[in-house]
Amino acid sequence: MEEAELDRLRSEIREVSMEILSLLKRRQELAAKIGEVKNRLGLEIHQPEVEGELRTFLVKQGKLMGLNPRLVNGLATLLFKDSTSIQQKKHSTITHMDILRRGLELERAGFQVHHLEVGEPDLGAPAEVREAVSSAVRQGLARYGDSRGLPQLRKKIAEQLEAKFKTRLGPENILVVPGGRFAVYLALKTLVEPGDEVILVDPSWPMYRQCVDFVGGRAVGVKTSLEKGWRPDTTSLENAISPATKAIILNYPNNPTGKSLEKRDFEEIVEIAESKGLTIISDEVYYDYSFGAQSSILDGYDVKYVVVQSFSKSFGMTGYRIGYLVAGRETVDKMASLISLMITCVPEFIQYGALKALELEEVPKKYSEIMRSRMEVAVRELSRLPVDFYRPDGGMYVFPKLNSGGHDMVRLALELLESKGVAIAPGSIFGGYDSFFRISLGASEKSIERGITLLGEFLREKGLA
Amino acid sequence: MEEAELDRLRSEIREVSMEILSLLKRRQELAAKIGEVKNRLGLEIHQPEVEGELRTFLVKQGKLMGLNPRLVNGLATLLFKDSTSIQQKKHSTITHMDILRRGLELERAGFQVHHLEVGEPDLGAPAEVREAVSSAVRQGLARYGDSRGLPQLRKKIAEQLEAKFKTRLGPENILVVPGGRFAVYLALKTLVEPGDEVILVDPSWPMYRQCVDFVGGRAVGVKTSLEKGWRPDTTSLENAISPATKAIILNYPNNPTGKSLEKRDFEEIVEIAESKGLTIISDEVYYDYSFGAQSSILDGYDVKYVVVQSFSKSFGMTGYRIGYLVAGRETVDKMASLISLMITCVPEFIQYGALKALELEEVPKKYSEIMRSRMEVAVRELSRLPVDFYRPDGGMYVFPKLNSGGHDMVRLALELLESKGVAIAPGSIFGGYDSFFRISLGASEKSIERGITLLGEFLREKGLA
Repeated sequence: MEEAELDRLRSEIREVSMEILSLLKRRQELAAKIGEVKNRLGLEIHQPEVEGELRTFLVKQGKLMGLNPRLVNGLATLLFKDSTSIQQKKHSTITHMDILRRGLELERAGFQVHHLEVGEPDLGAPAEVREAVSSAVRQGLARYGDSRGLPQLRKKIAEQLEAKFKTRLGPENILVVPGGRFAVYLALKTLVEPGDEVILVDPSWPMYRQCVDFVGGRAVGVKTSLEKGWRPDTTSLENAISPATKAIILNYPNNPTGKSLEKRDFEEIVEIAESKGLTIISDEVYYDYSFGAQSSILDGYDVKYVVVQSFSKSFGMTGYRIGYLVAGRETVDKMASLISLMITCVPEFIQYGALKALELEEVPKKYSEIMRSRMEVAVRELSRLPVDFYRPDGGMYVFPKLNSGGHDMVRLALELLESKGVAIAPGSIFGGYDSFFRISLGASEKSIERGITLLGEFLREKGLA
Repeated sequence: MEEAELDRLRSEIREVSMEILSLLKRRQELAAKIGEVKNRLGLEIHQPEVEGELRTFLVKQGKLMGLNPRLVNGLATLLFKDSTSIQQKKHSTITHMDILRRGLELERAGFQVHHLEVGEPDLGAPAEVREAVSSAVRQGLARYGDSRGLPQLRKKIAEQLEAKFKTRLGPENILVVPGGRFAVYLALKTLVEPGDEVILVDPSWPMYRQCVDFVGGRAVGVKTSLEKGWRPDTTSLENAISPATKAIILNYPNNPTGKSLEKRDFEEIVEIAESKGLTIISDEVYYDYSFGAQSSILDGYDVKYVVVQSFSKSFGMTGYRIGYLVAGRETVDKMASLISLMITCVPEFIQYGALKALELEEVPKKYSEIMRSRMEVAVRELSRLPVDFYRPDGGMYVFPKLNSGGHDMVRLALELLESKGVAIAPGSIFGGYDSFFRISLGASEKSIERGITLLGEFLREKGLA
């Protein structure tokens, strides 16, 4: 009897599920029509306000029906993601990966390539750090350890941050991780459930978008513009927040624009996040490369946060794959359990290198000076070209806009590489800035100077200057 | 005109969305009723076959309507997750983590602890490896590199595997990864979509179950028994396969039983996997610790596979966090893109250590001899206790069963630690083997001998011997 009842209920569930599918299909047809109308009207495909309004409406109606807001939000995200992709047109099949790949090919074939595309400084780790790691390896300091990192390293990081920012931190707020990328991943994986949304301020490092997508979330970009000095408009930011939003990613000094966030903007964004219960993921890996004042979320702001930090830039330790996260104890606990599951811990001997690095306070200053000097060269050379750009407040990038618009920048970048051996990163990968490109200061002043000069030649030859 | 059209379409989208919500509500009511019936019938809440069948049906129907399978799968997972949580009850107990934590506390307080619980051999990396890493670090071999690993390392691994197993492999089949855990994660993340299932042969390393769950899949355990010498029953295995099954994880020599898979069983499992289109994830990190013959999936079997390998056990390089995966080119490509997203690459200088290790072919032999000798001590000592166990064919564990059943092994293990300072891993964590416990050979013969003697004392004092 009961088994028959179970069968009946199951077949009903199957029917209801099928009806949902039919409605999904109907919804897709409507979305496709909307896409056509928007195209004719020249409207943006992704309209956060319209979505936000519909989402709020659905959650409210769902509540009246006794549906869990989490479930309704998950459904809304699924539907919106689908609608956006249906309305979107496909374009340019060449990607920036082709540029990277082609650059390596050219080099292997014996051609000189000026690498103005990669985000890796050529500075290298200080001799003291190399010695500390070597020595730890020789001593056999290579056993499974605490997934949070060496206690003495976490203690030292906490102490230095307290001294630098006058915030209150203990070792329990620090998590040692294998690099900044993994830090971003851990933060997102911990904060974001499938269907949740994360706000990005565009242009932004492509990894954020990829990683939000990777953890099943949805990245909602808030555009900033060169005309407004890349200042985020807090009203747009507020409008982009939906009931499914869990976090805002900030990255200042910014990759790719070199913008520092002004204190009042920082305060306003924190206030918005706080009032909406959002976490700020503040990627501060370029903090030490600030040429002027730079705010940090560690400056005593009252909001839930996760800070991403790395030894790669400040200490030239790119290939060591070590960084750290700063967050509330509970968040650190959650992230630590993921490290424990996925990698056990960062190799102990590398952590001894990081511990040594923290004693070398002059190194980040020296490296920052090198970047500032390279930046001056880049700015001077770029000023001679038909481009507009924001003069960076820090970081290791400039993000110029080609004055004559309407070109396929990915294709141009590929041509530039082929004809002049100069590799740059096209703006499209930073969130659709198609007339822009990014110049990195990873290479020497000479290489930067020569690369930009060759870029100028290229633009003249193409009739773009 | 066009704007009016847009408004009309949007209000239609809103209505369709509301209808979807109503159906979700209807579905929840049905799920709740199903939960009640299942409770009365004493049925499991999570019934993978039923879900798998409905999922397959929905994807198929969706395809007929022109719906993207990705969208339908996303919806199905959302619905199933919701249904399961509506039907589920909660519970909690002491876990093995309490044992680990307490062991560390006792040590910090100055007590001696015999570590028979951890899966880390105390052998350490050979001096040549340490020297190679030290030297690479000093030379500054620490830049962002190929996410697949150093070409020369991948080439050497492929060559050695070809020589060892007479299979055909190239560097494109090898992916260097930060340790065996990350290898398992990458394999599962690449093969398993949310809602997919993975077969485990229990007892099994707890990480598999945790990681399947972590990537949104479902672990389906196939039990084996001490009575049958831990041989997997291929009929049970075949019955556990559902339309949602994507992979089978094999781990021989086995953690925790020490069992090697007999050749005919290997062949039969491969045949089943092949006929059902499943991938075999073969975790062979204990391969070099085989005391007799041991099969490998690399022995020319015709099936999709991913092999997990590590330098941790064979070369005592636990804390170096380096291992590798062997798989088909396409799978390696997918996994490499995850490494690229999440960690860029394994530190270059550590890879030079691995490259050196591969020259030291006598090391795995020597370490295996040490394990065999420790195993003899463990077997001799355990034979004096009131326990039954399978005499291991390899690996670094013994998995005895306490003759007098009905005890809470986690609690017993905690008491043993408190009263005798001996840490063991309770069998419950390996998939519900509550009368069993695992003894690891990570410690010295002396410590193993002493630890098991103390365990005997404890059992006598508890009246269990």
